[in-house]
Amino acid sequence: MANTFHTDFALSKNRLEALADGIFAIAMTLLVLEIKIPDLAKSVPASELGSALAHETPVFIGFFITFFLASFFWFFHHATFRHFHTLRPAVAVVNLAFLMFVSLLPFSTGLLSRFLQNSAAQAFYFGNQLALAILLAVHWTMVRKQTQEPASADERDQVQTLNRIYFFPPAYALALVVSLVAPQWSFVSLMFGFLIGRVTHRKFA
Amino acid sequence: MANTFHTDFALSKNRLEALADGIFAIAMTLLVLEIKIPDLAKSVPASELGSALAHETPVFIGFFITFFLASFFWFFHHATFRHFHTLRPAVAVVNLAFLMFVSLLPFSTGLLSRFLQNSAAQAFYFGNQLALAILLAVHWTMVRKQTQEPASADERDQVQTLNRIYFFPPAYALALVVSLVAPQWSFVSLMFGFLIGRVTHRKFA
Amino acid sequence: MANTFHTDFALSKNRLEALADGIFAIAMTLLVLEIKIPDLAKSVPASELGSALAHETPVFIGFFITFFLASFFWFFHHATFRHFHTLRPAVAVVNLAFLMFVSLLPFSTGLLSRFLQNSAAQAFYFGNQLALAILLAVHWTMVRKQTQEPASADERDQVQTLNRIYFFPPAYALALVVSLVAPQWSFVSLMFGFLIGRVTHRKFA
Amino acid sequence: MANTFHTDFALSKNRLEALADGIFAIAMTLLVLEIKIPDLAKSVPASELGSALAHETPVFIGFFITFFLASFFWFFHHATFRHFHTLRPAVAVVNLAFLMFVSLLPFSTGLLSRFLQNSAAQAFYFGNQLALAILLAVHWTMVRKQTQEPASADERDQVQTLNRIYFFPPAYALALVVSLVAPQWSFVSLMFGFLIGRVTHRKFA
Repeated sequence: MANTFHTDFALSKNRLEALADGIFAIAMTLLVLEIKIPDLAKSVPASELGSALAHETPVFIGFFITFFLASFFWFFHHATFRHFHTLRPAVAVVNLAFLMFVSLLPFSTGLLSRFLQNSAAQAFYFGNQLALAILLAVHWTMVRKQTQEPASADERDQVQTLNRIYFFPPAYALALVVSLVAPQWSFVSLMFGFLIGRVTHRKFA
Repeated sequence: MANTFHTDFALSKNRLEALADGIFAIAMTLLVLEIKIPDLAKSVPASELGSALAHETPVFIGFFITFFLASFFWFFHHATFRHFHTLRPAVAVVNLAFLMFVSLLPFSTGLLSRFLQNSAAQAFYFGNQLALAILLAVHWTMVRKQTQEPASADERDQVQTLNRIYFFPPAYALALVVSLVAPQWSFVSLMFGFLIGRVTHRKFA
Repeated sequence: MANTFHTDFALSKNRLEALADGIFAIAMTLLVLEIKIPDLAKSVPASELGSALAHETPVFIGFFITFFLASFFWFFHHATFRHFHTLRPAVAVVNLAFLMFVSLLPFSTGLLSRFLQNSAAQAFYFGNQLALAILLAVHWTMVRKQTQEPASADERDQVQTLNRIYFFPPAYALALVVSLVAPQWSFVSLMFGFLIGRVTHRKFA
Repeated sequence: MANTFHTDFALSKNRLEALADGIFAIAMTLLVLEIKIPDLAKSVPASELGSALAHETPVFIGFFITFFLASFFWFFHHATFRHFHTLRPAVAVVNLAFLMFVSLLPFSTGLLSRFLQNSAAQAFYFGNQLALAILLAVHWTMVRKQTQEPASADERDQVQTLNRIYFFPPAYALALVVSLVAPQWSFVSLMFGFLIGRVTHRKFA
């Protein structure tokens, strides 16, 4: 029957993994397209080109941080894939929304690297990351409901570790709020949010 | 014999799947390259940058919708791959034409997001999607002919579900026609086309 | 011993296939980046945008033809991979040179679509394709030497079909020569070259 | 327990390989985006376009060399993957840093091809390559520590060959130093560095 779609249509999780790897690889590589080659004369002296590049340091740092945060998401996202075998359509939809925000990252990063301390640019950037964090948490919750009890102590530990996914939304939400009032402190507050989450987790896990 | 090419040359479907995943991943990620970073001074106040971004809302919506429609095509395209084992050259050719229109999507989306309510831009956009819909339907028809009777009730249900592929061409054709006469209603008519197809399918399936 | 490198260092062909699929997918998708969105006012009437797009027809045709030719190379390249198991470094080097010219395709196509009937642009374009054709033929020759006698009639037929790879260099060389003297006939002469090759092959195979 | 993360969380190396292949494929293809189509009138005579392209020869050479060096890194990076089965988080982190510098390559290459003999551009370019060389050497050292004694003579030979990874950092460091004082000799000195490494290796291996 056609309208049993949501139950009978098991998808292959491998192809979603392939699409996810592809989109992550491309988005992470496109980040660099937003770093512009200094628009100077070809015969510019090395010192001047050097200082133009040095001037771009915040842009490089933005690229490095975003690459690092994106690979964090990639890492946790892919680690969850061991904990289910059948990909239900609802999970597929959440994953596609997640991937959509992955592919938005080069734009957000470009915006941030152009308007570095601007609240609007930062809010957009952290809003993008927050959307990723929330969708990953939703994905993980759906996956956990679907899975049976962890079979081994080892598997239980892995689930514990993956529960760190739940720290991400509050940490990014904090950074988003801070970016609106004090953009120069947003990244510090993100690190602070991660730290708090880590300590809390260690206590209660 | 050389001219038995069309019968003796079974291809590996896995590599076509890999190429398809790659092209989908890239086209879906390149969509975002068409969203331009606002060309404002670096010291622009947050409120002004914010309103410039808010002004871009239709472009973001276009990006989201196209990403969603493309992942729809990706989903159905990949689901058909379970229903055959040998990839015949004729099917490969249809698939490569399909992938060519996938790789055209960033251009169509960029065109649409620049000339939003313009009939010519919309006709190009829906023409691209219609080409995808028709080629996917041709592919599915070829795959169905090649397959034996579905073995299990489960497989029969899947084939039923995949028959929804046949709703796509009329829905996109409707949107294309509407875009020429009343571009502001084209997306609504696309949704309407999908809905009609869904209801019809439920009735006759 | 370190200098037995060329004999002892069997590589995994799967990873080279993955890299090849990735580079083909990206190059084929990047082709579209060379099609520029018409630089017109946002409020341009549909008829004017339509005629601007119609004016771009040769560019679209160039995109379609290049996509088709590239997928031809992809198809034959991947079909050869069934005929060997161990990837020797010399074959890997030829393949990497081949992939380098694949990744040059977006540039050649962009050049051609901008300077359509210009001999220099066409010579560059067909030079790129000729390099692909020659490297693919070298690769296939190396693979054939490495393989044992085809085991089955089926395998012998496949090798026959793959020998068509040897038509490519003369056909592209013909197009390159013609492009220098009569650029408007270059694509016709390419098709003619393929046709001649096909007929010859059928006769002698 | 949550803080046993570093020991209990074995990752799948296959997915990291897929991400690596994707990032290499994209970075290697994006290199070409930095080659600009000559900005001439559409009706330019072939001779003028030809000489404009000939004028770009150093840029093409830069593209070819970078593609070649990058595929060298790809080759050695992927060859190491046979020598371990479990991917520990520390190795994953080193690999992600490695991939970050891979994705920076299109920028470095673009910078170099614009400011060819400029010390600052060359230092940036060789700095990027040096970072890759060092991270690959760190990765290989970690992998070696993790592996048991090579089982067979064949495996021992492979480890020998992979030890060539240790030549890369000094060769690139030499090129970096030379680029600061005599940029016209930087590539020659890189080749010289490789040669020295090769001879030394042959002597002591």
